[in-house]
Amino acid sequence: MKNSSLKIWSNVKYYETAMKLLRQGTSDHQLILVSETIREDPSLASADIAFGQPDAEVVRQSSSLRWVHLDSAGYEKFDTRLMHSDLRSRGAKLSNSSSVYDEPCAEHLLAMMMGLARRIPHAFENQLKDRMWPMMELRAASYLLAGQNVVLLGFGAIARRLVELLTPLRMNLVAVRRQKTGDEQIPVIVESELEKYLPIADHVINILPANASTRNFVNAARISVMKRSAIFYNIGRGTTVDQEALLAALHSGQLAATYIDVTDPEPLPPGHPLWTAPNCFITPHTAGGYIGEKERLVRHFLYNLRRFMTGENLLDQII
Amino acid sequence: MKNSSLKIWSNVKYYETAMKLLRQGTSDHQLILVSETIREDPSLASADIAFGQPDAEVVRQSSSLRWVHLDSAGYEKFDTRLMHSDLRSRGAKLSNSSSVYDEPCAEHLLAMMMGLARRIPHAFENQLKDRMWPMMELRAASYLLAGQNVVLLGFGAIARRLVELLTPLRMNLVAVRRQKTGDEQIPVIVESELEKYLPIADHVINILPANASTRNFVNAARISVMKRSAIFYNIGRGTTVDQEALLAALHSGQLAATYIDVTDPEPLPPGHPLWTAPNCFITPHTAGGYIGEKERLVRHFLYNLRRFMTGENLLDQII
Repeated sequence: MKNSSLKIWSNVKYYETAMKLLRQGTSDHQLILVSETIREDPSLASADIAFGQPDAEVVRQSSSLRWVHLDSAGYEKFDTRLMHSDLRSRGAKLSNSSSVYDEPCAEHLLAMMMGLARRIPHAFENQLKDRMWPMMELRAASYLLAGQNVVLLGFGAIARRLVELLTPLRMNLVAVRRQKTGDEQIPVIVESELEKYLPIADHVINILPANASTRNFVNAARISVMKRSAIFYNIGRGTTVDQEALLAALHSGQLAATYIDVTDPEPLPPGHPLWTAPNCFITPHTAGGYIGEKERLVRHFLYNLRRFMTGENLLDQII
Repeated sequence: MKNSSLKIWSNVKYYETAMKLLRQGTSDHQLILVSETIREDPSLASADIAFGQPDAEVVRQSSSLRWVHLDSAGYEKFDTRLMHSDLRSRGAKLSNSSSVYDEPCAEHLLAMMMGLARRIPHAFENQLKDRMWPMMELRAASYLLAGQNVVLLGFGAIARRLVELLTPLRMNLVAVRRQKTGDEQIPVIVESELEKYLPIADHVINILPANASTRNFVNAARISVMKRSAIFYNIGRGTTVDQEALLAALHSGQLAATYIDVTDPEPLPPGHPLWTAPNCFITPHTAGGYIGEKERLVRHFLYNLRRFMTGENLLDQII
């Protein structure tokens, strides 16, 4: 069996229990662990499989790499036409780890939505500062989610899971998706229909990946048609939002609030105006994280490794 | 029809839209709006119906009051044997507004649980103070709720709704209930079984009402058997918890965190040690509040008024 022992390159650096799992799970193969990601890395170019965050150009030009598994949900540098055509032409595969991240990201969005609805940050700010008892003010500003309108920008695994989590809350959900597959649990609209749905949305949730077509997707024009009571969330990528427009909308009251997990740049510098903009709430790109995340990443790779060896379709296969 | 025009006493003081709704909905009757609740109030003692927060002793001794509808979920002062026997003996009814509060309270608990799981308060504290980018620390401390164990102390309308909201999160739920009705969606245990379930609980959620049997229900002995990683929530009443024991457990690390909406006393004084105890998160009795709450309270009363007039069972009838 020609596939029996392969050269697996990896630049992941996890805590020991996860690394041990990786070494054990790849013991039939030659595991090459590198600590640096460099363009001239000959071990990457000559490997059969890469796991982690390999250099995209080396991957594209390598004639030996047959499968690249990214340990992230994002794959911006691999989302180019050239990459697609070059990998396809030599029968190489690309997969990512999105199913490791759909659950925590969906739970993170639920936490953001519930937090604002119940004025959780406002109560916590009182606890840290004044320690008064703003019961009446916070109760009067809290709201129930039932019956409110949600527009999801993007509809992948995270959105699918979020829809499940939101189901008992009885909200009205629609999603914008480039290509409708017909198996979505909620109505799907196309980008041109956004102008009809944004003005009635109470919650606009951005889960878009970063690529050429999503840059500044949420721009001044789109924000301007939203309700003044609307809340904008972003756990996609910071570059999909025109941050200047977002800042202006928060300062003018054109948006009631925003809860964002991603910014441009990251880390957001301590003096950046988003930190102190009115009703702007920021989590520092934590939406995907959880205890056991690294073991899950390794298990996902090993699961796909077994499928790769038997020629089956990969989980989270992109190319 | 002898019931056609009744004397309805009320001491509610809501914003105008809700008061207008109340006046319109009771226009067939004589509505007596009082601004003070006093023991000697002759209009209460001689009314047919009371809506709001009437004095419990006047209610108990009045020979004319046939129905009291409380505009709260709590009914501590009416939860006595004497009240039960006196009202029953003269065929008077008591109802509360618990179904106005089950949804916001269940959503509040979900917000607390999701917030801690996703380190939402920790991220917000960073935003208010240092404005660094503690991505790795917060990701590593975040956790998924799936598979975690929940013990609910109390199983009424709020718990029922919380179970629905938690269903897609796939947690393991059990509830302690005085009397099992058999229609609970989750396993119900009796108080004596708590010693088996508390040691494996990741989340202990207190929704108990205040009465003689629930005072200090969560005491040092019960806290001592909980896991050191357990989180304790309270949206019931502050008096059901031994706050000294809770404080000690937070300081010793015997409890990982607590999220409480009720305290004893309320308001909690600015210098109270709970405000600054480690991993203690406080919302100022806001769990039941929401935009439209007062209209909902009036509508609930008016709904019951129609049922009272036709002799039907009341919604949220206690006696």
